[in-house]
Amino acid sequence: MTVNQRVEALRSWMRDHGVDAYLVPTSDPHNDEYIPPHWMCREWLTGFTGSAGTAIVTLNRAALWTDSRYWLQAAEQLRDTPFELMREGEPRTATPIGWLARQIQDGADFVVAGPDDMLTPSTTGRLQREAGLTLRTGLPDAFDAIWADRPALPAAPIVVQPREWTGRGSADKLHTAAFSIAPRLKADCYLFNDLSDIAWLLNLRGADIAYNPVFLAYLVYSGTDESFVLFTHTDTLTPEAYDELRRNRVSVREYGEITDFCRRHSVQAADSVPLSLPLSQTEPLASPVGPMRAVKNEAEREGFRQAMLHDGVAMVQFLRWLQEEVGSGRHVTEITASQRLADLRAARPGFCDLSFATIAGYAAHGAIVHYEAEPHTDARLQPEGLLLLDSGAQYESGTTDITRTIALGPVTDEMRRVYTLVLKGHLALARQRFPEGTTGLQLDLAARSAMWSHGYDFGHGTGHGVGSHLCVHEGPHQIRKDLRDCTLVPFADGMVVTDEPGIYLAGRFGVRIENVLLCRHALQTDFGRFLEFENLTLCPYDLSPLDRSLLTAGERAQINAYHDEVRRRLMPLLTDEADRDWLVRATEPLA
Amino acid sequence: MTVNQRVEALRSWMRDHGVDAYLVPTSDPHNDEYIPPHWMCREWLTGFTGSAGTAIVTLNRAALWTDSRYWLQAAEQLRDTPFELMREGEPRTATPIGWLARQIQDGADFVVAGPDDMLTPSTTGRLQREAGLTLRTGLPDAFDAIWADRPALPAAPIVVQPREWTGRGSADKLHTAAFSIAPRLKADCYLFNDLSDIAWLLNLRGADIAYNPVFLAYLVYSGTDESFVLFTHTDTLTPEAYDELRRNRVSVREYGEITDFCRRHSVQAADSVPLSLPLSQTEPLASPVGPMRAVKNEAEREGFRQAMLHDGVAMVQFLRWLQEEVGSGRHVTEITASQRLADLRAARPGFCDLSFATIAGYAAHGAIVHYEAEPHTDARLQPEGLLLLDSGAQYESGTTDITRTIALGPVTDEMRRVYTLVLKGHLALARQRFPEGTTGLQLDLAARSAMWSHGYDFGHGTGHGVGSHLCVHEGPHQIRKDLRDCTLVPFADGMVVTDEPGIYLAGRFGVRIENVLLCRHALQTDFGRFLEFENLTLCPYDLSPLDRSLLTAGERAQINAYHDEVRRRLMPLLTDEADRDWLVRATEPLA
Repeated sequence: MTVNQRVEALRSWMRDHGVDAYLVPTSDPHNDEYIPPHWMCREWLTGFTGSAGTAIVTLNRAALWTDSRYWLQAAEQLRDTPFELMREGEPRTATPIGWLARQIQDGADFVVAGPDDMLTPSTTGRLQREAGLTLRTGLPDAFDAIWADRPALPAAPIVVQPREWTGRGSADKLHTAAFSIAPRLKADCYLFNDLSDIAWLLNLRGADIAYNPVFLAYLVYSGTDESFVLFTHTDTLTPEAYDELRRNRVSVREYGEITDFCRRHSVQAADSVPLSLPLSQTEPLASPVGPMRAVKNEAEREGFRQAMLHDGVAMVQFLRWLQEEVGSGRHVTEITASQRLADLRAARPGFCDLSFATIAGYAAHGAIVHYEAEPHTDARLQPEGLLLLDSGAQYESGTTDITRTIALGPVTDEMRRVYTLVLKGHLALARQRFPEGTTGLQLDLAARSAMWSHGYDFGHGTGHGVGSHLCVHEGPHQIRKDLRDCTLVPFADGMVVTDEPGIYLAGRFGVRIENVLLCRHALQTDFGRFLEFENLTLCPYDLSPLDRSLLTAGERAQINAYHDEVRRRLMPLLTDEADRDWLVRATEPLA
Repeated sequence: MTVNQRVEALRSWMRDHGVDAYLVPTSDPHNDEYIPPHWMCREWLTGFTGSAGTAIVTLNRAALWTDSRYWLQAAEQLRDTPFELMREGEPRTATPIGWLARQIQDGADFVVAGPDDMLTPSTTGRLQREAGLTLRTGLPDAFDAIWADRPALPAAPIVVQPREWTGRGSADKLHTAAFSIAPRLKADCYLFNDLSDIAWLLNLRGADIAYNPVFLAYLVYSGTDESFVLFTHTDTLTPEAYDELRRNRVSVREYGEITDFCRRHSVQAADSVPLSLPLSQTEPLASPVGPMRAVKNEAEREGFRQAMLHDGVAMVQFLRWLQEEVGSGRHVTEITASQRLADLRAARPGFCDLSFATIAGYAAHGAIVHYEAEPHTDARLQPEGLLLLDSGAQYESGTTDITRTIALGPVTDEMRRVYTLVLKGHLALARQRFPEGTTGLQLDLAARSAMWSHGYDFGHGTGHGVGSHLCVHEGPHQIRKDLRDCTLVPFADGMVVTDEPGIYLAGRFGVRIENVLLCRHALQTDFGRFLEFENLTLCPYDLSPLDRSLLTAGERAQINAYHDEVRRRLMPLLTDEADRDWLVRATEPLA
């Protein structure tokens, strides 16, 4: 079936159902970072494979919006399809809803619809406000009718996250969540649809979403009898998971029954719940779990430390191998290097999965912030210049996320300067102490101060939360330079955050250096309680591309202390003499 | 007349006018930082002389609210008066409006009033929302009736600010302001009531408000015929000021005619306009002048540099004198030292006034952030410990604001540590480069990073704007750690801001170090346009209380470069050999 045929099939369905415009976002009912194939309707319909975009099909036009990362790719993939490419972010590009407003032939009768389980009340609101249009809901999902081999919903086994790494029973977590919701609840029931919330509350893990150890589910709290009901694919529950739920008095129903449940009960939820779930109370109520989940308890902190040991060993084995291979002229590419690193991680005890698709960007590829090597871009690593390597894994004990930029041979003075300025920012943030209540917006300067002084900057965030064997990008807090809800969240003892400044010179090279930090109590003075960061990540920084003249004595001492800690912690776990030698050399103190 | 008699006189007036509660804030119709004596009704009524407070008198009770700075003083001054002291900021203290709500005997008939020209629509709004009460306006001002010797309105001469230091004609400024207001104006006229706005727009200066070279006035822009009318005390206009207004086609009317004007015309204004001016359009429209005024043009920048030369000379003369006097055991106190400094400034060409009341806090007094020495607190300066000296002046060319903390003799290790941490923060902010668009909330960390690492902090702002021979505290931007409108204003080339971190150890000593900085273009790179600060203030830092072990090589170089600049700029203006010798010694490079 060509894209043309797919669009025609959709239009035929639209005519049958009296629909004038069909809206296809890139999303799923749980706002997952990675969309399961079942909900990749936009990709199937348009042929455009990027991770972000919105398609709209009317009876005589079709358009796809995507952001600047994907303009080139989309232009190519949409060629010879009915879709016009709408360059999102260009000043003259209409928004999807603005564009839709101009397509209206006969205002009163113009019917807009879309897959109800991929749309949220915010779309309805914007349609109403910006175009005066009402979204028609309650129709069947067009893709069920026209997508013959539409993939089934994922249904991987659901397992129990060991108590050793949760440190807290599910019954206790559920009780706290209920206690927080109850006074604000304006309906009988509260519906959780965030899969991380549900996995964390129930101390269960799955594998339904790429890289994220969660499972498809809704969780309902009933305020009337203070009970919890889990809607999930019940046949994916392992016996242990079943037992765990029973012990915590969580009853279980089929995933598909949630719609009917919502129809029959008085339910309130966050504003991210899809339109397919009819809510009697439309005032949104945010889930209280994000802030609870963000503060790691002692077991979770220890789990991170454990995961970092495994990850550090794999990184050391990999870096030693990489230098040997590239140095001796053997054929290594971005993809084969990534695969080698994945294999080394997979050999570590407790390994479950990668925590995201490895970014291995050599030379100019390093300047593409979200680069993912594909066979047709895969660059051979030469014994010169910089390789940016951003990777991580899911271990049973915790989640890792590390970026190292590695000199594969000689580097230019500019590379040294840029590398050193990034490292200075990374170190400054890691050593910053601050009073309780300080936010990510306030802390951001620490990571940018040095590079700003030389006229460099970067556009992405400086740090994000990390889950405890959960999503590698976890809220509610972030460190970044722009004012957002996430940059106004006060840091608290127990929060985990990445520290990942970078500098990217388009077409030439990119540098990013990232560790995961644990925010912890530092000291109490007359001026209040102060917090500091513990470095969780254990892996040497590459010192060969440093411009030492830019480092202060304090920075040298900080690097040496970190390297000392890395060597002390990883050495006992390294069995190969070559790895041990490499680590000793890599962590030699800077004079 | 005792306070008791004043309160009884007010109650008698209240009974005559059917008023149940009379609200007396500390304010004037122009939101001036310092209240002219005419509007010091709260002080006259209560006997409490602090700079902040709200009094409410009902027929049987009387209460005064003030913040923690003034609790001790207010308790003393209110003794044997009918006023209960309400400690503002204590958790159990009711707000004035909350307290008022509890005094209501018969809801429907409870009449609240106050002097209409000291109250704004926001008071009306809060009364309505928080107590369901409507403020009765249109009554005569009770104080006109009961305050027999109420001071007249100030009426100092209005003079022209020389074109040399404004760099821009008034007609041009008025045109720009009108251009900004016109499209948003929903009435025929716009009313300016901020005295700095008016002085800046008209290139005129006065002396009606303490320390602030402004004059009582309202300025009305008429959108219908694009004309401006100034309401002021016309007999205070010098002939030159009159000419200037005529040339710029600004017509002139008496200050007192504004009320009638507002009654007869359709007028809109900012929400700070008093209730005595009846506005036909109640939707507030902020004045556009603040952001215009904040960006200094070349003439204004040069004016600052000129003012700083004069101020630097006076500071050097003073510091040399102070060390000699205190060192040789002569009798110097906080007040006599302040007076000496004021005299030295007054001898400089172009001097007009101080820009605020000098803060000279010796030893424990230095830890009181808004300390102002009075005869009964005036401490003799001993040849030991620290003196915190925050002072500034109005010169025709510009406004200065400088804080130096000076070791008068031996200091403790703790003093050295604290002094050095403050200086490190001060230096870090002064040398910070940043992209255009960066806000004061983002920059604040630079000034606090070093002290935070040692568990110190301070509660006040880090920096405020400064006027060009206008108010020393000028908006719209500030550098501080809390989220406010002023900390979200992006810095721009031409903005002036103070850099004044501090640390205060209650009962022991305080340290603050302050320079005025000019934000200017630094460099343009592929990453955008970067800004930096130029140090406007010219005066050595006291290096004797430094803990040099806490300084980096970069910080030493920064101090040396600054001291080199200070010496180079001030030396040609110093005529006394002893001052010249002192400056050479004070600016000797740190090894």
